[in-house]
Amino acid sequence: MAEFIPPGTRWFALPSPFPMKRGGALHGARLAYETWGRLDAAGGNAILILTGMSPDAHAASHADNPAPGWWEWMVGPGKPIDTRRWFVICVNALGSCKGSTGPASIDPATGAPYRLGFPALSIEDGADAAAALVRGLGIAQLACVVGNSMGGMSTLALLARHPGIARSHINICGAARALPFSIAIRSLQREAIRRDPEWRDGDYEAAGTYPENGMRMARKLGVITYRSALEWDGRFGRVRLDAERRDDEDPFGLEFEVERYLEAHARRFVHAFDPNSYLYLSRSMDWFDLGEAHGGDTAAGLAALTGVRQALVIGVRTDILFPIQQQEEIAAGLRQAGCETRFLAMPSPQGHDAFLVDEARFAPAMAGFLGALPCSARDPGKVA
Amino acid sequence: MAEFIPPGTRWFALPSPFPMKRGGALHGARLAYETWGRLDAAGGNAILILTGMSPDAHAASHADNPAPGWWEWMVGPGKPIDTRRWFVICVNALGSCKGSTGPASIDPATGAPYRLGFPALSIEDGADAAAALVRGLGIAQLACVVGNSMGGMSTLALLARHPGIARSHINICGAARALPFSIAIRSLQREAIRRDPEWRDGDYEAAGTYPENGMRMARKLGVITYRSALEWDGRFGRVRLDAERRDDEDPFGLEFEVERYLEAHARRFVHAFDPNSYLYLSRSMDWFDLGEAHGGDTAAGLAALTGVRQALVIGVRTDILFPIQQQEEIAAGLRQAGCETRFLAMPSPQGHDAFLVDEARFAPAMAGFLGALPCSARDPGKVA
Repeated sequence: MAEFIPPGTRWFALPSPFPMKRGGALHGARLAYETWGRLDAAGGNAILILTGMSPDAHAASHADNPAPGWWEWMVGPGKPIDTRRWFVICVNALGSCKGSTGPASIDPATGAPYRLGFPALSIEDGADAAAALVRGLGIAQLACVVGNSMGGMSTLALLARHPGIARSHINICGAARALPFSIAIRSLQREAIRRDPEWRDGDYEAAGTYPENGMRMARKLGVITYRSALEWDGRFGRVRLDAERRDDEDPFGLEFEVERYLEAHARRFVHAFDPNSYLYLSRSMDWFDLGEAHGGDTAAGLAALTGVRQALVIGVRTDILFPIQQQEEIAAGLRQAGCETRFLAMPSPQGHDAFLVDEARFAPAMAGFLGALPCSARDPGKVA
Repeated sequence: MAEFIPPGTRWFALPSPFPMKRGGALHGARLAYETWGRLDAAGGNAILILTGMSPDAHAASHADNPAPGWWEWMVGPGKPIDTRRWFVICVNALGSCKGSTGPASIDPATGAPYRLGFPALSIEDGADAAAALVRGLGIAQLACVVGNSMGGMSTLALLARHPGIARSHINICGAARALPFSIAIRSLQREAIRRDPEWRDGDYEAAGTYPENGMRMARKLGVITYRSALEWDGRFGRVRLDAERRDDEDPFGLEFEVERYLEAHARRFVHAFDPNSYLYLSRSMDWFDLGEAHGGDTAAGLAALTGVRQALVIGVRTDILFPIQQQEEIAAGLRQAGCETRFLAMPSPQGHDAFLVDEARFAPAMAGFLGALPCSARDPGKVA
């Protein structure tokens, strides 16, 4: 099974059958999640984090899994998402391979992995699954829902389909719809996997093969678009590999440090993510369009999100995958919806990935917004 | 032979042996070129065009080949590069597969194509070959040398290695050195070809195979980086293919117009360019660094180009492959070299490819510069 489940993961059984937006239903599906802090008696201090495409639910270390999480500097006692004050939930997206049900999970109808038999996956399905978890944990209303990247799409879908589920919203490097440049990139990543002869129409596991080359290409292209030319100029320049790290037998082998960096990223990823899950999640982003129910009018889709009181929207000027115009669009739309919205354009050089690494800019922005947020629907103001 | 030679091509026999910068030499090599207009008696009205990576020498139609060229609106009677006034030469780059000697050509030592036996190719080798052609045509000094994209690298190498070869210079979307973002893109394109099992270490022709998938991926990634997100938003948006153009059997098949556009580009290219030639030319760009002879100091390399009197440097704000900072760097360096330099930052939405398609902006810029340029070294000013 190409599933990669962190220790200390918890599971939530989704309603069964769990209907999928584009047809079909899941039976006996589950959602993996982790939590930090304690839910207060009124259930008013919960923050939900919806992730990008590849992370698991392990955003930060905790007693059951002391390994650092992917947002370790953001989530914890005294950190911007302060777990002394907030009850924090992070969800592994539906369709992923890190604990939640996805194409690599066993289909109870056959006893074998779903593979391409998994129903078509939409961003909205992930949002519905997250909403079910929120209700299942006894939370009537989230204090805040935070979404990064793909998670920024998921949070908008959650707010649209489950009005009133959150009092506030933080959208980081998100988008209200997929645009053709990022569709093109993702389409090419999927093509790299699908054209790898070892993919076998998704049946690699049964065939004893693995689309390693396709996954390697997809990941390298991902890393290229997650970062920025500006950062790499400063970081790698034209530095070459030491002679002993080069393969002199291969005239087109690795030569520049930037190539080694991409290779190292690819190696870490290729066997740590299920290829079919990659295809499903990637396609779900292409399909996402908050304006779909409004005749393709994204602004109208955003203006309909009337349940949210306060929002923080953050974009990064060097992001080429979710360009900053898309976060400006979200902020403008939330204001139309009557939401008190703060928009921050970060000058981080790291591109789309800045929210993972630019602690100096993101930590104070998040701490400032959350610090001023009431812990309950009735609490009128700032907690000292 | 995977060579693609336009009708009406002319050939110039390079000196034999022709030494290559990184070692080895070519024997009996030739350069393909086309010309327009007439060389005047003093030989002072010649303009040389050095191309990007994939074009042939057929920049525009002429009597021997009436098919439209890749720069048809730029070169011809009454056009910005006015062939009533100028004698225009366009060269197919050394190492290409469109008439000039490259990896797909026959190695006279073996009687078989060079393939990976072709010596390591540098931008400087292409510049030296172009210089030999200029001398061979009896031209003591070019009125102007024009380079686009890779050709913008080649022209800088030409000016550095052959001082005095041109009185003026137009550099369009060029670069004085390769930076890590574009190295990463090109490295990934080469990897797609090299990891295609049909590539056979470059021996596809002998094996009766062809790295079609690798070439397809390389070209699609190229097209993505040659254009811009801005242009595609306006051009494709989220428009989907008509039902009859979709393959309903393939759950991950083409769905959006932008995917069809990439597919069409890939189909046209895949069997119209030799894969090994692609690898050699691509790598030559990664290697290019005008500062190499100056301890890696690009500015010093540019400041040493003292032979050029006037220059026009053009960049495009939406270019992600040769970002506009690189053309600003060229302009600043040429000014340091004492060259009267005009720099234009085009707001074209089309990205790197703007010089091929944005006639409205590029035509007047080129016409303005060339119109004011003297036809001979002695001619002091503008021709009416």
